[in-house]
Amino acid sequence: MADGIKLAVVGATGAVGREMLKVLEQRNFPVAEIIPLASERSAGKKAVFRGQEVTIEAISPEAFAKADMALFAIESDISKQVAPMAMENNCIVIDNSNAFRMDPNVPLVVPEVNPLAAKAHNKLIANPNCSTIIMVVALNPIQQAAGIEHITVSTYQATSGAGLPGMQELEEHVQNYVKGIPNTAKAFKHEIAFNLIPHIDVFVEEAYTKEEMKMVNETRKIFGTPEMRIAATTVRVPVFRSHSESINIETLKPMTPDEAREVLSKAPGVIVQDDPANAVYPMPLFTSDTDEVYVGRIRRDISVPQGLAMWVVGDQIRKGAATNCIQIAELLLEKKWY
Amino acid sequence: MADGIKLAVVGATGAVGREMLKVLEQRNFPVAEIIPLASERSAGKKAVFRGQEVTIEAISPEAFAKADMALFAIESDISKQVAPMAMENNCIVIDNSNAFRMDPNVPLVVPEVNPLAAKAHNKLIANPNCSTIIMVVALNPIQQAAGIEHITVSTYQATSGAGLPGMQELEEHVQNYVKGIPNTAKAFKHEIAFNLIPHIDVFVEEAYTKEEMKMVNETRKIFGTPEMRIAATTVRVPVFRSHSESINIETLKPMTPDEAREVLSKAPGVIVQDDPANAVYPMPLFTSDTDEVYVGRIRRDISVPQGLAMWVVGDQIRKGAATNCIQIAELLLEKKWY
Repeated sequence: MADGIKLAVVGATGAVGREMLKVLEQRNFPVAEIIPLASERSAGKKAVFRGQEVTIEAISPEAFAKADMALFAIESDISKQVAPMAMENNCIVIDNSNAFRMDPNVPLVVPEVNPLAAKAHNKLIANPNCSTIIMVVALNPIQQAAGIEHITVSTYQATSGAGLPGMQELEEHVQNYVKGIPNTAKAFKHEIAFNLIPHIDVFVEEAYTKEEMKMVNETRKIFGTPEMRIAATTVRVPVFRSHSESINIETLKPMTPDEAREVLSKAPGVIVQDDPANAVYPMPLFTSDTDEVYVGRIRRDISVPQGLAMWVVGDQIRKGAATNCIQIAELLLEKKWY
Repeated sequence: MADGIKLAVVGATGAVGREMLKVLEQRNFPVAEIIPLASERSAGKKAVFRGQEVTIEAISPEAFAKADMALFAIESDISKQVAPMAMENNCIVIDNSNAFRMDPNVPLVVPEVNPLAAKAHNKLIANPNCSTIIMVVALNPIQQAAGIEHITVSTYQATSGAGLPGMQELEEHVQNYVKGIPNTAKAFKHEIAFNLIPHIDVFVEEAYTKEEMKMVNETRKIFGTPEMRIAATTVRVPVFRSHSESINIETLKPMTPDEAREVLSKAPGVIVQDDPANAVYPMPLFTSDTDEVYVGRIRRDISVPQGLAMWVVGDQIRKGAATNCIQIAELLLEKKWY
């Protein structure tokens, strides 16, 4: 694979799949052949890669047999069906869905945080939930330097988390608002324009949503800290594509805000934007289309003996999904873990 | 005053002042004479009260001399100048600004929470910060039943917190977006449409904003708990007029989510909206123009031994400002504390 790989992108017509094609180009990923795949319904449509039109094929064993590796940007239930088909055809799968994340035999990888976990893959690596990726990239430098024993997080999640239909619904609702046309919710449970919806994914245990429990369980798995105390509240906001998170942590060793800024400013994938006097802090509108996680409002948590508070923003489609998948692929190539 | 009072509304042209006139009507407050006041610039303009046009007068000692009581909906620095003028003219002031809230000689009152504090007034009562009012109304039933020792809150604050210019800016930015016209921020530090701004009021101690420290200090004063541990992160969101808050608390005595729902459902000024299976929880779009504080997503905080998490929403202009001021006035009349 060293001279370029034959790469399938599964779900090439969705928000994340399209972004994958863009990010592969931008990062100059060594693609020998791109194989865009989608459902039967989308087969025959065209995708664009490196300025060339490529025909989208239907998902099939034959298509996977041609590929060295596949990036999956499809729903969990389809992933569960299709991943074995790819693996049986000797194709390594990097799956963006929730299907395999908590499987103890499947590595759950954020390359800046737990790259070594990828080594043990058995042709399948899971890409974490978008909110989790953004949080662990920001917290890892502090986890390494001081240890984190408690996380309280409230999210402000963009409509892109619900894919193209989510972004289109915000656009449509705002257009309707300006024209005085009443809105009907389709992609979300309720109207999203000028509103907040404290409900992402389905409700599961103890009145938490699945999205909230993903942030708990995936963070523990990625950090390798099954006892880490984490509580999350996840909220959909009328923003197009960057997720934001208000995070309060308690650390095992004391760490000052200056020390946190120091380790964060040296951390891979992190940009510190923290100059309140000049109104500089991360904001979702200005972090779209970038691969980094932005951290600001770094300050002492004045309510605990040893804690920090911060405000973290990252593009949900890029670092939260497409970019992280591609970074995992880059890691496998670099380390020859295939 | 028992047969109706002569009531000045100072700042009658602003978002809160206008709402005060509306709420006075709706609650059938016993107004014998309404005296709308504003700056010299607005004097001569008309306000409408009970279907009648009333001329707005300039703020003056003579105007206050005619009034028994005044509701102040003006900026802190003007309040500081004008409140003594009213009090010298024997007019009781209920001030919505930040000017006197932390003055130990001035009661800071939320009628559902600490009504007795109002009794000790010396012609001046302060109305708390909007985010604080909404939080303490929701937390007071739990504070009474179980005691609260730690609060971590992240807010999602509407543009109405910046008055009419704030709401107009969101409207204008959305209109511009649809027309393809670039936006310029005026009422806020940055563009607000499709964005989040983690910066409300000025930065003060330890990189916290004044808004965040108001939530800490005012909550302690209202509850009479100077040691209560509180950390706040306050964020402006593209919503017109209801504030939302993601709140995690630790209690002194254990309390189950069911017990919390029970005390909250009986509490004055609180509406429990908590039926996740049917996608029922508070949302800002559907709580505008109401006087109650809405509480939902009530669940155990799974990250602490004794804690609860919840999602709280309330109309910033009503319960967060105008309505609470008028409830204080009603309390003074009912108890004859004048």
